[in-house]
Amino acid sequence: MQLIDGKAIAAEIKKEIAQEVEEIVKNGGKTPHLAAILVGHDGGSETYVAHKVKACGECGFKSTLIRFEDDITEEQLLKEVERLNNDDDVDGFIVQLPLPKHISEQRVIEAIDYKKDVDGFHPINVGRMSIGLPCFVSATPAGIMELLKRYNINTQGKSCVVLGRSNIVGKPVATLMMQKSNPGNATVTVCHSRSENLKEICKNADIIIAALGSPEFVTADMVKEGAVIVDVGTTRVPSDKTKSGFKLTGDVKFDEVADKCSYITPVPGGVGPMTIVSLMRNTLLAGKKCIY
Amino acid sequence: MQLIDGKAIAAEIKKEIAQEVEEIVKNGGKTPHLAAILVGHDGGSETYVAHKVKACGECGFKSTLIRFEDDITEEQLLKEVERLNNDDDVDGFIVQLPLPKHISEQRVIEAIDYKKDVDGFHPINVGRMSIGLPCFVSATPAGIMELLKRYNINTQGKSCVVLGRSNIVGKPVATLMMQKSNPGNATVTVCHSRSENLKEICKNADIIIAALGSPEFVTADMVKEGAVIVDVGTTRVPSDKTKSGFKLTGDVKFDEVADKCSYITPVPGGVGPMTIVSLMRNTLLAGKKCIY
Repeated sequence: MQLIDGKAIAAEIKKEIAQEVEEIVKNGGKTPHLAAILVGHDGGSETYVAHKVKACGECGFKSTLIRFEDDITEEQLLKEVERLNNDDDVDGFIVQLPLPKHISEQRVIEAIDYKKDVDGFHPINVGRMSIGLPCFVSATPAGIMELLKRYNINTQGKSCVVLGRSNIVGKPVATLMMQKSNPGNATVTVCHSRSENLKEICKNADIIIAALGSPEFVTADMVKEGAVIVDVGTTRVPSDKTKSGFKLTGDVKFDEVADKCSYITPVPGGVGPMTIVSLMRNTLLAGKKCIY
Repeated sequence: MQLIDGKAIAAEIKKEIAQEVEEIVKNGGKTPHLAAILVGHDGGSETYVAHKVKACGECGFKSTLIRFEDDITEEQLLKEVERLNNDDDVDGFIVQLPLPKHISEQRVIEAIDYKKDVDGFHPINVGRMSIGLPCFVSATPAGIMELLKRYNINTQGKSCVVLGRSNIVGKPVATLMMQKSNPGNATVTVCHSRSENLKEICKNADIIIAALGSPEFVTADMVKEGAVIVDVGTTRVPSDKTKSGFKLTGDVKFDEVADKCSYITPVPGGVGPMTIVSLMRNTLLAGKKCIY
């Protein structure tokens, strides 16, 4: 079994990006600038945004964090989105999800200029990805593809089971895995809460991408000898063994599955760091005006 | 085995639409208006467009056919698209594909106002469909879903194999079949030219949607007893038995597969008529401004 070291790959990519940014700036180009809007004080969101701001620093980007209390109105938030759309210095920006219940996330996402939508959530970017056109690919699916690529994992013609059909991970990663590309060209099966014979389907898979958000769902009896396991789950499970009082737990029962497979991503340190680094890459592409 | 009679269902839906249009017009509303641009004289395209114009008549729509010779430049065609975008009387329009090689189909598709894109090919409509938002769903996938619905075929939790990963059929129908909806909620596997063990995968499917464009590809030994078969193929195979000199041939070897399955769509008379009727429904939705 080989551990897929997302943390190491992410560090490598951040270095590559930092070098490129240095080169750009040396040649009189503009420093890429990512802005992030954070509404409220959700623990998970605070952590994610802090990681993103830190990663910007490591990549040589300029970053701006814009905070609002969770009583901000939808209208006020949409105004801020509009302001960022029109701010020529901001190359890309994100609105950290989830948002308070009185605000429509979909409305906010659609208000973002797709040319600055480095999260890749705007319908235009989703559609262009599906068709196979240049676009901002959403960060987690892009990160998974990059891991498979850097570890030279053969996906051509292989059977890939995606667990979960979310708009943010399941559906886009399924699309990427089936495209005429490398990695890609896999025979992709998308499973979800309604799927029958789920165990049997997983058992036949060469590659399993688990993105259900259901801690330790994938057990050893569901995994074929030599399979590749990508664990996207990051559920905060209460724990008395950590300072924070919780433990980030993946969708895969790591201890029993690890021995059976050829490659596996750990949680934390697998897909998570790659998600952030994919956002950095999208910001670089936005700064260079590579896509739009 | 029950034959899925797409022709009869299509006739039924056209009647429903015609009744609704009559009602709209009686109440002082606007007659839905579909325009179609046809470039050149490709035999298949001529037939398709003629069928669409005829269907408009049956639905009580106004239709306009705009013809160009195949030496039209991309710029001229884009100007015509722009003109239709701005013509308030035109509710929706299509540019019949394929286009001559010197014109970028993608550029033309993206030039169409997505609010009039009744073919559902614009990236915004593709993305919105993937996310599950209201949109123009492209005609063939929408027609397939409608057939499954009208025949009350249970897809929940079932294993559905889609053969083909085209942007127009394979990928969107896979997305629709996996959504939280009815029909939908299926466990979807997308197979293509690179897939290994294709026979075995098909053999385990409860539902097969064949959209490869490979005549008689699906043979009896690939089909499980009692499976549902949807045949999207319409290849013109030369024949000396028909006046036209060709025979429309599906992706399924009908004669040997029919006996094994619970439901099957014939070619012609299955998915084909439903594709046209889905375009009619999109035009009605455009006319009623139901989506945008």
